[in-house]
Amino acid sequence: MRDLMAVTARPEVISLAGGLPDTSTFPPGTFAAQMTRIAQESAAEALQYGPTEGFAETVDCILQVMGAEGMLPDPDDVIVTTGGQQAIDLICKTLVDPGDVVVCEAPTYPGAIPVFCSYEAEVVQIECDEDGMRIEELEAVLSRLEDEGRRPKFVYSVPSFQNPAGVTLSLERRRRLVELARQRELLVVEDNPYGLLRFSGDPMPPLYQLDGGDFVIYVGTFSKILSPGIRLGWAVAPPPVMEKIVLGKQAADLCTSTLTQYFVREYFAEGRWQEYVASLVEIYRRRRDTMLDALEEHFPAQATWTEPQGGLFIWATLPDYIDTGDLLAKALREDVAFVPGESAYVDERGRSSMRLNFSGVSEDSIREGVRRIGRAIAEQVELYGALTGEHPLPPTPRREENKPGDVLPFRRSGEGGA
Amino acid sequence: MRDLMAVTARPEVISLAGGLPDTSTFPPGTFAAQMTRIAQESAAEALQYGPTEGFAETVDCILQVMGAEGMLPDPDDVIVTTGGQQAIDLICKTLVDPGDVVVCEAPTYPGAIPVFCSYEAEVVQIECDEDGMRIEELEAVLSRLEDEGRRPKFVYSVPSFQNPAGVTLSLERRRRLVELARQRELLVVEDNPYGLLRFSGDPMPPLYQLDGGDFVIYVGTFSKILSPGIRLGWAVAPPPVMEKIVLGKQAADLCTSTLTQYFVREYFAEGRWQEYVASLVEIYRRRRDTMLDALEEHFPAQATWTEPQGGLFIWATLPDYIDTGDLLAKALREDVAFVPGESAYVDERGRSSMRLNFSGVSEDSIREGVRRIGRAIAEQVELYGALTGEHPLPPTPRREENKPGDVLPFRRSGEGGA
Repeated sequence: MRDLMAVTARPEVISLAGGLPDTSTFPPGTFAAQMTRIAQESAAEALQYGPTEGFAETVDCILQVMGAEGMLPDPDDVIVTTGGQQAIDLICKTLVDPGDVVVCEAPTYPGAIPVFCSYEAEVVQIECDEDGMRIEELEAVLSRLEDEGRRPKFVYSVPSFQNPAGVTLSLERRRRLVELARQRELLVVEDNPYGLLRFSGDPMPPLYQLDGGDFVIYVGTFSKILSPGIRLGWAVAPPPVMEKIVLGKQAADLCTSTLTQYFVREYFAEGRWQEYVASLVEIYRRRRDTMLDALEEHFPAQATWTEPQGGLFIWATLPDYIDTGDLLAKALREDVAFVPGESAYVDERGRSSMRLNFSGVSEDSIREGVRRIGRAIAEQVELYGALTGEHPLPPTPRREENKPGDVLPFRRSGEGGA
Repeated sequence: MRDLMAVTARPEVISLAGGLPDTSTFPPGTFAAQMTRIAQESAAEALQYGPTEGFAETVDCILQVMGAEGMLPDPDDVIVTTGGQQAIDLICKTLVDPGDVVVCEAPTYPGAIPVFCSYEAEVVQIECDEDGMRIEELEAVLSRLEDEGRRPKFVYSVPSFQNPAGVTLSLERRRRLVELARQRELLVVEDNPYGLLRFSGDPMPPLYQLDGGDFVIYVGTFSKILSPGIRLGWAVAPPPVMEKIVLGKQAADLCTSTLTQYFVREYFAEGRWQEYVASLVEIYRRRRDTMLDALEEHFPAQATWTEPQGGLFIWATLPDYIDTGDLLAKALREDVAFVPGESAYVDERGRSSMRLNFSGVSEDSIREGVRRIGRAIAEQVELYGALTGEHPLPPTPRREENKPGDVLPFRRSGEGGA
């Protein structure tokens, strides 16, 4: 990933690889006004250390964000972290001993895997379909583990507009997951960076809301609704867990940046943060639609992809003779990048899939980027045909085969799943 | 420490406990101008993710800081971290396996101990005297460990104006430590937050400079020469170690704040950072002198303390029947705080010592704070006399007994030590 990010920093490369929000949408005037206010009123404080748990004013902003999705945590249960990534890291630091089982989705957030591995967890992945994690499979896995005398430390899930698959856990499955957690006294770590970025469909209650915070530990971030460059996220956990997270935070980096916390405080004081999120939703909806159109136009008929109702990502799956790792090498020569599916699994799965980001680039770049990937795929398909003698895919994909509703990213509907 | 910090946040408390620089000395006009420039020229970039290793422009600033102490690292060996604390954490994450030995000073930086412990290191502490870590004792410990078939993962040292003791490793000991590292292929982690804050005496070459970066891993920070609230530090390590540190960083928090890195970039572009450091040196020198005067005036004659040539801290040692943990409880009732010495040790040592900070408070507060601690000590002394029937210390300490030169913080000179 490191090299990939270095390559995609070249200006001529269209990167559909990152998980980047479009920060050019943030008004520079607002930025300047906030900072001038901080300089005039609290420069010395903004440059000083802050409390390990974060400032109460930052927690107030967090409560507003969580409140917008119907959650009402106790402020004492909240810790401000250096991005959502640190929240995941601190939760693992607190809970995971070597050899412990951590359960997550298949595919899962590629940035979570190195964290789980760094604490030497055994990662078990549960298949997703268009309704998110298949809870039936989760139950089967939990029972199998129980027979072996093992219990996972937690289930990690990105229930809304999942990274990388773009799918959303259905309400029914959310209820079952929370119920399961309570029955089995099993912790669930809900990572919800995109919940407020919904383009269509009805809002879905977060697991934290359904559970009330007894068994659900919550991870949030300002990265996707304001800025990732300020590195501000948070975790919400019950007191016994939170105490250990605070100690872990202190060892990890003492406290979160005061300057960027003040930035958020000033921003929320203006009272227009929800307007900005609404503007992002409009922009990202158009980009998603553009990407879906471009996929229909440029990807082969045998490809499938998800149709996210929000968030930042589409997950596309190609015929299984195409290895997206190889395809990426070819794509980079065409100055376009994506994340190969393999990085979202701990095993060999995902080799014919890819994560495509639509939030960080313009509609023109999305069209051109998908066109270039489509061309690289067509070459792979031809090569396959030449090598095997099989008839390659039709060079012009048939649009009508990829109507919404037919989208079956991981397996056909009716094959089970809660 | 958490509760201590919460208590000391009360405005009526004079806290000599923190390790706080005085950020009120930073000109708010400079702050505002920098931020306006960022808003006008690069708001979108400042709010976006950055590379895991940090921006090249930040590394340029780091090279300037290290250059001011005679160091010239390869920029590729540098990673920008979320404060120096994260650098220590990532180095441990990279190098330490459970049960590994880590060697450090006695006393050592209180914030390093929880890091070592979180990676389940066995911490071995080497006594300090007025010339820093006693290298003879280090050699003896290394030999003992070798006999047991063990080798420390690294020696952690704050060689200049040490936290908490304020002492500085002599040139002769620096040379021996670096030589020892080379002979034994032993890593040394040099933590140097205060090197540029020298009030008196000749500059001392950092271990990194003497060694050339083969066996010395370097930790630096902008916290004490600019601002801790921006959470910007760095590590310098040879490529095989750095590769793992970068992976650890990615898992820990993806990347360091772009906004605060841009803040530093703009600040250094003005070319006056060394003037600001020089102004801090003047302010802190006066505060150190004030604290030394106040100690002579208000502490009992049996107390000793260090006379730092720079940095932020004085280490005071009281008669051994005084427990500074108990004393702190009493001091807090008098609205004054310090760090009890025990937090700088992994064992029972340090119970009659305390760390006093002089950088974060005004000269008036230093005088008043030391006066209050002195009064609390006098009460303890009287209590001890009443309980034991021994003659308590004279209520008015004898100034002449604490002349500079007599200061013997840990043991009398002539008791050995390299």
